[in-house]
Amino acid sequence: MRVFGIDCGTECTGFGVVESDETSRNPELCWLGAGGIRLVKKDSTAQRLAMVYAQLTALIELHRPDIVAIEEVFYSVNAKSALKLGQVRGVALLAAANAGLPVAEYAPLKIKSTVTGYGLAQKEQVQFMVARLLNLASPPQPADAADALAIAICHIHHAQTSALQAVNR
Amino acid sequence: MRVFGIDCGTECTGFGVVESDETSRNPELCWLGAGGIRLVKKDSTAQRLAMVYAQLTALIELHRPDIVAIEEVFYSVNAKSALKLGQVRGVALLAAANAGLPVAEYAPLKIKSTVTGYGLAQKEQVQFMVARLLNLASPPQPADAADALAIAICHIHHAQTSALQAVNR
Repeated sequence: MRVFGIDCGTECTGFGVVESDETSRNPELCWLGAGGIRLVKKDSTAQRLAMVYAQLTALIELHRPDIVAIEEVFYSVNAKSALKLGQVRGVALLAAANAGLPVAEYAPLKIKSTVTGYGLAQKEQVQFMVARLLNLASPPQPADAADALAIAICHIHHAQTSALQAVNR
Repeated sequence: MRVFGIDCGTECTGFGVVESDETSRNPELCWLGAGGIRLVKKDSTAQRLAMVYAQLTALIELHRPDIVAIEEVFYSVNAKSALKLGQVRGVALLAAANAGLPVAEYAPLKIKSTVTGYGLAQKEQVQFMVARLLNLASPPQPADAADALAIAICHIHHAQTSALQAVNR
């Protein structure tokens, strides 16, 4: 299973591609790519969204994932930030839909607790554990890429748990 | 000048196309099309966004406008609604950008005061005035289509005022 994780942001949107071998009981997680799409400040909102959409579409085409995993949004932010984030999230979901891919959504708490064992973990702990789980010498940069990888790892873990439960039933 | 107005909504997104003759000093406004894109409740968010994007893209291609006009968002809504609205707004802005069109944004107060003379006008007053300005026998349906036409009329009015000021300077 190959998962394309997206961490939407109004300044930088992270992406991370993780693959696992579903047939193995203790599968190795394999990192295939990660990075950030940084928005150009002088561009208009429409131009920025077009850039995020074009880059995500190209990356999805390149990596050919089975599924896109994305963070559910928490509503503790204010309405202005939520709208801006929603615009980016809208084009990210569109990139998945237009590539014909299903989308899985995970709450931030679930992503953090899956990767670090603690739902309220700090950003640095998530980065450290992502690097460890993927056998990377140092945490992936930018930080948004690490978050996107965490989302992808979260999906792989929960898909495997579901599959295991189905086998044992 | 041909303007494609979009009124983004989480249940229904209105569109309205208005044309004016820029060379005339008292130009007639001409209505070329209007309607609503209603979202299917059982669809996933990604599927809904894909539908809005595909329909807006097809309508823009059909009507070949010079510019897209869209409402600036007011932040009196809560963060959850703002995020959902932002997602729709994101794909609407993307449809404009991917069609190579500029985007003009207007505050709700400005749209209402341009069309009705009163910034805090009721929805029904806006619908009534849109029908009157466009010589329609009855207000366009759905209501979101009337709002989209109001946004397009607002852009035409302000573009003409700017042009007139430039001539008189």
